[in-house]
Amino acid sequence: MKIGKETVPRTAISTSDEHTIVVRGRNLCAELIGKVSFTDYFHLLVTGRMPDAAGTAVLDATLVAIAEHGLVPSVQASRMTLAAAPDAMQGAVAAGILGCGSVILGASETAGRLFSEIDQRAGSGGDLAEAALAVLGEYRLARRPIPGYGHPLHKERDPRVDALFDVARTCGADLRFVAIAEAVERAIPQVLGKELKLNVSAAIPAVLLGIGFPLAALKGVPILARTAGLIAHLNEELEQSIGFALSYQASREVVYEGDVPRGFGAAH
Amino acid sequence: MKIGKETVPRTAISTSDEHTIVVRGRNLCAELIGKVSFTDYFHLLVTGRMPDAAGTAVLDATLVAIAEHGLVPSVQASRMTLAAAPDAMQGAVAAGILGCGSVILGASETAGRLFSEIDQRAGSGGDLAEAALAVLGEYRLARRPIPGYGHPLHKERDPRVDALFDVARTCGADLRFVAIAEAVERAIPQVLGKELKLNVSAAIPAVLLGIGFPLAALKGVPILARTAGLIAHLNEELEQSIGFALSYQASREVVYEGDVPRGFGAAH
Amino acid sequence: MKIGKETVPRTAISTSDEHTIVVRGRNLCAELIGKVSFTDYFHLLVTGRMPDAAGTAVLDATLVAIAEHGLVPSVQASRMTLAAAPDAMQGAVAAGILGCGSVILGASETAGRLFSEIDQRAGSGGDLAEAALAVLGEYRLARRPIPGYGHPLHKERDPRVDALFDVARTCGADLRFVAIAEAVERAIPQVLGKELKLNVSAAIPAVLLGIGFPLAALKGVPILARTAGLIAHLNEELEQSIGFALSYQASREVVYEGDVPRGFGAAH
Amino acid sequence: MKIGKETVPRTAISTSDEHTIVVRGRNLCAELIGKVSFTDYFHLLVTGRMPDAAGTAVLDATLVAIAEHGLVPSVQASRMTLAAAPDAMQGAVAAGILGCGSVILGASETAGRLFSEIDQRAGSGGDLAEAALAVLGEYRLARRPIPGYGHPLHKERDPRVDALFDVARTCGADLRFVAIAEAVERAIPQVLGKELKLNVSAAIPAVLLGIGFPLAALKGVPILARTAGLIAHLNEELEQSIGFALSYQASREVVYEGDVPRGFGAAH
Repeated sequence: MKIGKETVPRTAISTSDEHTIVVRGRNLCAELIGKVSFTDYFHLLVTGRMPDAAGTAVLDATLVAIAEHGLVPSVQASRMTLAAAPDAMQGAVAAGILGCGSVILGASETAGRLFSEIDQRAGSGGDLAEAALAVLGEYRLARRPIPGYGHPLHKERDPRVDALFDVARTCGADLRFVAIAEAVERAIPQVLGKELKLNVSAAIPAVLLGIGFPLAALKGVPILARTAGLIAHLNEELEQSIGFALSYQASREVVYEGDVPRGFGAAH
Repeated sequence: MKIGKETVPRTAISTSDEHTIVVRGRNLCAELIGKVSFTDYFHLLVTGRMPDAAGTAVLDATLVAIAEHGLVPSVQASRMTLAAAPDAMQGAVAAGILGCGSVILGASETAGRLFSEIDQRAGSGGDLAEAALAVLGEYRLARRPIPGYGHPLHKERDPRVDALFDVARTCGADLRFVAIAEAVERAIPQVLGKELKLNVSAAIPAVLLGIGFPLAALKGVPILARTAGLIAHLNEELEQSIGFALSYQASREVVYEGDVPRGFGAAH
Repeated sequence: MKIGKETVPRTAISTSDEHTIVVRGRNLCAELIGKVSFTDYFHLLVTGRMPDAAGTAVLDATLVAIAEHGLVPSVQASRMTLAAAPDAMQGAVAAGILGCGSVILGASETAGRLFSEIDQRAGSGGDLAEAALAVLGEYRLARRPIPGYGHPLHKERDPRVDALFDVARTCGADLRFVAIAEAVERAIPQVLGKELKLNVSAAIPAVLLGIGFPLAALKGVPILARTAGLIAHLNEELEQSIGFALSYQASREVVYEGDVPRGFGAAH
Repeated sequence: MKIGKETVPRTAISTSDEHTIVVRGRNLCAELIGKVSFTDYFHLLVTGRMPDAAGTAVLDATLVAIAEHGLVPSVQASRMTLAAAPDAMQGAVAAGILGCGSVILGASETAGRLFSEIDQRAGSGGDLAEAALAVLGEYRLARRPIPGYGHPLHKERDPRVDALFDVARTCGADLRFVAIAEAVERAIPQVLGKELKLNVSAAIPAVLLGIGFPLAALKGVPILARTAGLIAHLNEELEQSIGFALSYQASREVVYEGDVPRGFGAAH
């Protein structure tokens, strides 16, 4: 069935013949394998160009920062899935990735969009604090949540935020979006009436937009990072399964609020 | 519901308190972010230890070798999924990963199991050629396919194989499993009656087992690598959608082999 | 980790002890198995009550209407996934379901929201045509697409629309949302400057809201229906695999728009 | 890329032109919508023929029997996924389905294969008890688990088993595979040295094979059934989210078995 106008598929990522695999204009076997790191290759794949030293440092730092945070919901979902279907690791990874949504991790992308809006509002030479206040005011008016601020566990600033900002500063990355992220943090009390500290989901776009990483691909960074963490958990799950123990604990105190048939629960 | 005997979940990967995130015994923010590459961190997450220089080189090379190979079936599935559900990149990545199964990519793990069997059969000092012949003979008898040999496009050895073996040799990794993989390649004509060259799915375990990467986690390497390629494709899909064009092309020549009701296809 | 305020899981769907499984207040084995159809059970599971005769007729009709439409993108994605991972049917079904997104099938839910808005705008006794015009005007102003109208293949009204409306009329279901859906169809030329006929994604909420099916669960109806179609396709795929043939056709005419290394494509 | 020999996709399930959608030889709008139940349509989609009355009764009963069993691991995984990504119901359904694997639910298919083997071993007129003992003995020798017997909660026969067998008896379905399933139950103590009662995963193939449902599609039945239950849970999750509460409970008593950096956990 024809859906939409375009019928010829086009891509600029990769082509090949019997002898050569070409990725982003380079010979995979002659120029890339053994010559570039996986992080740099990811940058090349997504953007079409190799990162500079600051780009490598920042991209590595963000991937390391968010790959793993213990038995969070998506890791639990993934381990339960592997316990039920141990032959299909790909299914358990997929189940874990499906939890990288708008509430968790997905905030990286929406925070990136917020920062871009403030960036454009301020323009070159404009005042970031004013632009942040203005855009946050509009979010408030439209009842849109402010993505990337506040954390259930880390009431102070999430420690990963400063670590990421330190990397960006040390390696000489563009710090404009870090400045914007901090302007938002300072503006929040005025707009929302309470403090909400930068969390890692805001720090990620703050440093990645500074190395020119595309806004539309921001959501891919937590997904790639989490995949590494998931594989570690699934390897551990294969050695020592806890998927069903997690599920047992989770449901131990469930309250059933529906009706029961006559006689249910009576002694048998 | 209690399934199995274990009710207390245990993990050795990560823990945290309000101030510190611990991963594999290290302080994430103080010791890892900005200090280790994503590849090394993946190794640490999975194995509990940092790789040596050979380990880094080999793991980077394998991840780069298999991250991308154009519009393969799983990439098509992923791009079609994003075209239909553009708000949920995580869903499109998941759809792509679900194609890392026993026929495609999953062969890395099964080839790894084959090589381990030959390794143990030969023992220290044993003859690899003999052990390869013996184990292949058993596979043949049990009608099990030989995973990791032959490729639909590359009739000669997949060019990525030599690239990966070169990296393993150059960086000083243990080459025992490379030798086993080549022993299998030499034994195949005798067992199957035709030549089948090593493909990349056999080269991956051959080099990774040489750096001590765990057998059970082998399947995770293509999954992580492909996730990087999928994110690049999905970023391109968001800019220039071809998901429906791929589907249109795919179904243009479909032959319907079922019945039709009377009058179907007649002029209206 | 504690996310959000709620720490005690609650559910009203099901509970059990060693002897009895309770679903929505009924004894599964004594009152449901062998006594209710799967369609009625689905209604009970979602809403907590058994449907009346009109409810059964409409829900069956919608599930039948959208379960299958040939080799659409999500079916292709699913069959490619099974070809690559034939041992994991659940993964292939999941890949197919992931294509039930905002562009395809998901329009059922968004069209339902549009109709509810018009319903509330008109109130009891209000004019549906006026309310439809007013709400469509607001969608137009906010540049929101009108979900559920127009179809790539069926330029006239999708034939499934009249079939579903006929069922709703014949079985005596509440027709208010059918009237709203048709009011929208009549209003579209005035608002958009062109005709767009009701498609099946609008007909589904039009008839389902008339039997009191909850708005939030509308998206689940195409998902359940498509799962039936996917299983049929995957059963066929196991007998006669076309997943790779689809992929071959899809990529035969791909245009590579990136650079190539010097010498690529020359005679070897 | 061409994988395999087949390049022309073929299907016998559905075709369409601008006016007519054909499914299994029938006009969808004229012959199916409003005329057949979803259960019968599922049977038609998978097998190409409408079920007889016994077929309808048995298929409905199996779908009802396994659609829902409370907050089992896959439902938890699904609800956690929706809590994290509430915009993508399809992703949460997919995560739940991915838990229909070899350990849970997937046993329906493997039990079906066991029964088919016994059926063929016995042949027409052969002794089922003998054939069951012989085949179970071979499973034992090959250290293969016996799928479909025993249940973590129901130490006696799962109550759904008798309910399903009653339906098969009452509606006049072929009972040969019920007899085989019971022969296996009686043979287990002799082979394994302990009693293991038939559970629902064995009862499903026992009754479905009796209505001619294809062995290869057996795994699809629990998947379709569970999708209905998942949609009910996800609808409840959208009204009253417990995904994060489940995760909180699951991880409350996690034991961390790894190292910690010096000073971790000390008062700050």
